[in-house]
Amino acid sequence: MIALGSEREKGNRYSVSEIDIAEVQDWAREAGALAKSYFNRVERSRKADRSYVTRADTEIEEMLRTHIAAQYPQHGIMGEEQGIGAIDREFVWSLDPLDGTDAYTSGLAVWGVSIGVLRAGKPYLGVIYLPLLDDCYWADAEGAAFRNDERLAVNPTTTIDSNDWLAIGSYTHRRFMVDFPGKTRSLSCVAADFCYVARGSALGALIPRASLWDIAAGLRILEAAGGVAYGLSGQTLNIGELLDGHKLPEAVIISSPQLNEKIRGCVRVRP
Amino acid sequence: MIALGSEREKGNRYSVSEIDIAEVQDWAREAGALAKSYFNRVERSRKADRSYVTRADTEIEEMLRTHIAAQYPQHGIMGEEQGIGAIDREFVWSLDPLDGTDAYTSGLAVWGVSIGVLRAGKPYLGVIYLPLLDDCYWADAEGAAFRNDERLAVNPTTTIDSNDWLAIGSYTHRRFMVDFPGKTRSLSCVAADFCYVARGSALGALIPRASLWDIAAGLRILEAAGGVAYGLSGQTLNIGELLDGHKLPEAVIISSPQLNEKIRGCVRVRP
Repeated sequence: MIALGSEREKGNRYSVSEIDIAEVQDWAREAGALAKSYFNRVERSRKADRSYVTRADTEIEEMLRTHIAAQYPQHGIMGEEQGIGAIDREFVWSLDPLDGTDAYTSGLAVWGVSIGVLRAGKPYLGVIYLPLLDDCYWADAEGAAFRNDERLAVNPTTTIDSNDWLAIGSYTHRRFMVDFPGKTRSLSCVAADFCYVARGSALGALIPRASLWDIAAGLRILEAAGGVAYGLSGQTLNIGELLDGHKLPEAVIISSPQLNEKIRGCVRVRP
Repeated sequence: MIALGSEREKGNRYSVSEIDIAEVQDWAREAGALAKSYFNRVERSRKADRSYVTRADTEIEEMLRTHIAAQYPQHGIMGEEQGIGAIDREFVWSLDPLDGTDAYTSGLAVWGVSIGVLRAGKPYLGVIYLPLLDDCYWADAEGAAFRNDERLAVNPTTTIDSNDWLAIGSYTHRRFMVDFPGKTRSLSCVAADFCYVARGSALGALIPRASLWDIAAGLRILEAAGGVAYGLSGQTLNIGELLDGHKLPEAVIISSPQLNEKIRGCVRVRP
């Protein structure tokens, strides 16, 4: 393992962890450029769970795995496309090479690369890159969360206005009744849901039952921006339990600490 | 009026109308560049109806009005920000300088410039430009609809799969029960709803009660891509009635002809 320590500085991208976050950002941008090169030009095919996958998903995961294995050979890696390996290690990378594949193949604009690292089963570091916006969201092992060079914070409001918005899933209308007094939008990209809550744009997000690669990077960024995540029933999340590929036991609400319970109260499971 | 006739050709942008559509596309791109230059850097303020407006909205409408008045001095113009003028003319331009202002100020990626022309109260020509995607959707007075150089057609399917999607509004959860068997997404940009239906990406869209500037360009593009628009109750739209600034009397479903009734059946007004 290459410990770069806290002295390393590269522009605004100051590394305080065992991992060189500036380099991880470069990998995410490289991955995003690859996805962009295939955008509107790629065929999609179905996976066993009937969700879509493209050549971009598989090539990006391969590229990220190659970088990680070369730089951090003792770390474990789990990814959406190629599965789980060495999850007993202290550091485990959790990759969604192209989060929002369906939005991507629909010609929509919000999709991206999500790279999270867990340390001893806890979110340690996160980088999410949204290529068409050229927005890189990131949080190191310590300190604040950022969009590019701009520091992020969840929305400080304690009330919900009719112009405020909640990010929801694209199947929410089939599974939940949502009585949110503002707007709802489904981006079809869980990583982006975390970004828009972390920057204080969305007040919260209803994250459907997710896998670790969907949320690993986002959870660290959310936490560093002052946000919290609870299951719909109010339970805290046990991230370590997801390392074997299991999904979360229930949907999750992410938001500021002061609004989480209020937003949970707006969402009921449809009978 | 400068009639450029059917001989004029400029790349793939062949003009068959009284209006030079290649030039209108250039105006839309110029407007999009202006919007992009303010993106993530602009303050929003509220209009009388509590919706948002930014410096980008007002500057773009001013720019478009200047171009139109110089080139087509005998045409009427109605725009979202500066209102209605000379709507008794044969040609009336209907402008939404920045459709999706709320998405724009939320840092989201789908918003754009919508320029429609009516002739004798009917959709005549439409150009919609989505800057972050660099996608220009357009349809001339005759012929097909295009995204850049690619010809568009509504989705030919007659069945609805769980991976198909319906575009909805960001207040839909408060006003309607939607039993669509696929996905739903709210882009918060009515012009984009028309584009994604016209290209066959979304199967349909539920357009909330709209003003003419929201739908003028989109209706021509939809029609040229083989799509149709009906009120939720099944009524045909009377576009001429909207020239005085009135909103549509009810929400509208846009889709292919074969799915419109089926989609209308998925949407009920909430009690």
